[in-house]
Amino acid sequence: MTTIIQSIEECKLLCRSFLTINKKIGFVPTMGALHQGHETLFKRSVSENDVTIASIFVNPTQFNDPKDLENYPKTFYKDLEILNNNSVEYLFYPEYQDLYPDGYTFRVSKNKFSKILCGSFRPNHFDGVLTVVLKLLNVILPHRAYFGEKNYQQLKLIEQMCKAFFLDVERIACPTIRDYDGLALSSRNILLTMDERKQFIFQNY
Amino acid sequence: MTTIIQSIEECKLLCRSFLTINKKIGFVPTMGALHQGHETLFKRSVSENDVTIASIFVNPTQFNDPKDLENYPKTFYKDLEILNNNSVEYLFYPEYQDLYPDGYTFRVSKNKFSKILCGSFRPNHFDGVLTVVLKLLNVILPHRAYFGEKNYQQLKLIEQMCKAFFLDVERIACPTIRDYDGLALSSRNILLTMDERKQFIFQNY
Repeated sequence: MTTIIQSIEECKLLCRSFLTINKKIGFVPTMGALHQGHETLFKRSVSENDVTIASIFVNPTQFNDPKDLENYPKTFYKDLEILNNNSVEYLFYPEYQDLYPDGYTFRVSKNKFSKILCGSFRPNHFDGVLTVVLKLLNVILPHRAYFGEKNYQQLKLIEQMCKAFFLDVERIACPTIRDYDGLALSSRNILLTMDERKQFIFQNY
Repeated sequence: MTTIIQSIEECKLLCRSFLTINKKIGFVPTMGALHQGHETLFKRSVSENDVTIASIFVNPTQFNDPKDLENYPKTFYKDLEILNNNSVEYLFYPEYQDLYPDGYTFRVSKNKFSKILCGSFRPNHFDGVLTVVLKLLNVILPHRAYFGEKNYQQLKLIEQMCKAFFLDVERIACPTIRDYDGLALSSRNILLTMDERKQFIFQNY
């Protein structure tokens, strides 16, 4: 059974105890609403590490539109089943006020690259992403962290941030998993109408 | 003899090797031009840890005025003697391009408190301080880091940043050491004229 950890202190203690006995931690950060794309990350982490920790945290600081945050799909019990089926040992499931004790006054920011692509029409989006990733990595201190190539710009930025701040974690990029119609699997897809789906597929092929 | 390490990779490897054998690292970050204030930090670290690492890095990103950076006192060989006399085992002495492989595009920033006191007339000063401290702490992963209370606002900000990003390091604040005339010891004091000294003393008492 996947064990749920909400407390940051408890999570830190657990992870430090694995480090002490030289157990390698694989970490898969998610925002929940898990799908087959996430499952490939879990499977890979489970196969490559002694312990796998997934996190579910819908990070408010990376949403520009409060409606988007509000509508973000939440499927907690289904997620738990998926984690369990994939033999993920731990779920880190923190609360906002615990992960942001400073109320998001301290942040990681980047100036250049993130102002194009997603960054250009979602201002501050990537500051939120980078900040929460740094927090999660520091809590868990994983040996390896797994990210989907679907969010390519995000992946590149996280990669660069890890280098800029000399983090020890090994970053593993996993290929995008696509649906029957070619659309990249994404938690938000369940919010799309059939017409919108077709439009995205048309744009991408 | 104090061993000088310039390479970040070498420093990381050394520090990780101490962690593996459970040796506690004490870290004293400095900008060089060492004085008795720094010496109290070295002595305390040496007495409380298995290994002490000092760093000397005049961090350009925290200087607003290029003239101030250029004029910052440099007394490398005297510094080395002081480190040696205080039984500091290692000096981490990195180059700018190694510590900022990203050219300072990734930074830590804080919005509120740092806009008053020093922050108000040295815009971006504290972003530079926080960014370099995070980098240094991540390279060295010390058990304890030592700071002077002289830079009180800086100390508070570093404390808050460590909490916001869940760093494991224990922060130790050491009392300000003062000169014969009551002025706080500071590397920049050697740039003061006698009149300026008197003015500062007058302002503070």
